Amino acid sequence: MLYAVIMAGGSGTRLWPLSRKGRPKQALKLVGERTMFQHAVDRLAPLFSPERIFVVTSPAMAEILRPQAPELPAANFILEPAGRDSAPAAGLAAITLLHRDPEAVMVMLTADHYIQDTAGFRAALAAAAEVAGDGTIVTLGIRPTFPATGFGYIHLGEAQTMIGGLPVYRSAGFVEKPDARTAERFLESGRYVWNSGMFVWRADRLMAEFAGQQPASHAALLRIAAALDTPAAAEVLAAEWPNVRKISIDYGIMEHADRVSVIPVEIGWSDIGNWASLLDILPRDADGNVVTGDALLLDAHNCLVRSEGRLIAAIGLQDLVIVETADVVLVCARDRVQDVRDAVNRLAAAGKTHYL
Amino acid sequence: MLYAVIMAGGSGTRLWPLSRKGRPKQALKLVGERTMFQHAVDRLAPLFSPERIFVVTSPAMAEILRPQAPELPAANFILEPAGRDSAPAAGLAAITLLHRDPEAVMVMLTADHYIQDTAGFRAALAAAAEVAGDGTIVTLGIRPTFPATGFGYIHLGEAQTMIGGLPVYRSAGFVEKPDARTAERFLESGRYVWNSGMFVWRADRLMAEFAGQQPASHAALLRIAAALDTPAAAEVLAAEWPNVRKISIDYGIMEHADRVSVIPVEIGWSDIGNWASLLDILPRDADGNVVTGDALLLDAHNCLVRSEGRLIAAIGLQDLVIVETADVVLVCARDRVQDVRDAVNRLAAAGKTHYL
Repeated sequence: MLYAVIMAGGSGTRLWPLSRKGRPKQALKLVGERTMFQHAVDRLAPLFSPERIFVVTSPAMAEILRPQAPELPAANFILEPAGRDSAPAAGLAAITLLHRDPEAVMVMLTADHYIQDTAGFRAALAAAAEVAGDGTIVTLGIRPTFPATGFGYIHLGEAQTMIGGLPVYRSAGFVEKPDARTAERFLESGRYVWNSGMFVWRADRLMAEFAGQQPASHAALLRIAAALDTPAAAEVLAAEWPNVRKISIDYGIMEHADRVSVIPVEIGWSDIGNWASLLDILPRDADGNVVTGDALLLDAHNCLVRSEGRLIAAIGLQDLVIVETADVVLVCARDRVQDVRDAVNRLAAAGKTHYL
Repeated sequence: MLYAVIMAGGSGTRLWPLSRKGRPKQALKLVGERTMFQHAVDRLAPLFSPERIFVVTSPAMAEILRPQAPELPAANFILEPAGRDSAPAAGLAAITLLHRDPEAVMVMLTADHYIQDTAGFRAALAAAAEVAGDGTIVTLGIRPTFPATGFGYIHLGEAQTMIGGLPVYRSAGFVEKPDARTAERFLESGRYVWNSGMFVWRADRLMAEFAGQQPASHAALLRIAAALDTPAAAEVLAAEWPNVRKISIDYGIMEHADRVSVIPVEIGWSDIGNWASLLDILPRDADGNVVTGDALLLDAHNCLVRSEGRLIAAIGLQDLVIVETADVVLVCARDRVQDVRDAVNRLAAAGKTHYL
């Protein structure tokens, strides 16, 4: 059977001041009236019954996310005692699925990315699941639309086949975030795709990679697995979790995994990595602005204006991001949105923790 | 005796969202921790005892201003039943002073202007009072520092004398707000000064001008004067006030008055007509910013950033005005601050009166 696992443990500062320590990106209504997590669940619905949608997150975040998706069984929220990056999260999900279904095929997804073409997304998942049936590890690669330096890339190897109209390539390697010149070269070559963090694999195949590449983590995961559904489950999980190596799935597993394939997709994907990316994906008004909440714009162009409560009056502006929350106003040049992280770091350094 | 009369009835929208219908510019702390009205009173103190400082304003505004200057006798707040521009206000002040002191020399001042050189200001008042003793109407003219189109001008006539180191000129005429080219010409000529709205005259001389130029208003003022300190005072004032013609002191009296002199002064005067003018008069940080309240600036230059309560984070900005109040955030290009008035008008047209 096919299962979806949504990774929803992350936190982020680049959408500050809306995103906060206790309210990361996946909990925010950035696109329309649903949170990013709700969008992540919604777009799975036609392909997955709620019983087959799982969420890996922290206990605190689960409190926030469970009410957002009441259709999911409470037990489908897999709780990490502490965030240890994506490889442990994937391993914990894999043993949880295997405990129920030794034949489980697992789709690993993110909770904080935007996908415009949800039907195309599901078609790609269905194709990837078909490929993964024989033990292949499948990654969805995003066809780059600009020379991004903020993403890892996957180098496309030889073409293998077509499934459901989508080409399948052997992976010729995972590549770290490139510099600008390299990113330009990647884009021109047509042979590189963005690593979206969306993977499909048989759960037992992932565990085999753990066994080969991360044996200590593998052993700890097996001990956690042995205790699942026993009275000692929580205790064993808490005790063994620190023994699962903190590392990303890319570094910890994918870079050295066997039989990795890539399906390049064009599904209107965005990681919404910063405020400016909302200007790329949300509908704009005649002046190129994206406006949310109460606002009065006079001669404003290509601005993101977002009010959570107060009136924002914007006069004679262009290429600005203005975000208003209950306790903070952010005004940032559109081409400086990466520096929001610096602002957050400065607040932390100044001990102004209530703003984090 | 010499008396100061501060005109404090006005309202303004150009410092919105800080200035509001019920909280005009004179009630705001724009410079330091004192309101503009308090500054207007403070800078008179070395020259005028509190008993000789009067305020003309509305009953509602008096409620706000009286606690700001508790040293002033409550009766020194002269209450207009309704705002009817500056000529009626001057007339009402004149009859009030004459009722106490037939020899009163009256200094008419504004409550919402900034004066940096307060000692120079008082020296100019003292000189003007000396000139006014013989019945001359004296205006303080501001030496222009740029070709302003937002002020009226006074044309300097022949030099008459020097008083206290200050030259006194005959007025060669009041000039309406000029266009940009005319303003350039005025500046270059050195023969024009800004009309600051600060005048010094014997109160009986002002009434004589009323008698000659505004006889109906003069008659009404005399009827109001006759009832002062009687039980019918309020009733007569209310009944006669509409008979005092609504007109500015410039149009109604000064343009056609006899024996008008001008003392040009350089006292660091600013009308703070808009948010950008605060960038001209307030001390700036190393990046040219004027910051009030809680703010975090990263690479911001020549910005006015004012928080009334919440944190303002400003990143990668220049020449912007950012003003945060309890219910509004204004973000405005520095060279577009005149359009704040348009924003207020649009809110009014949209029925959003709570923002006005």
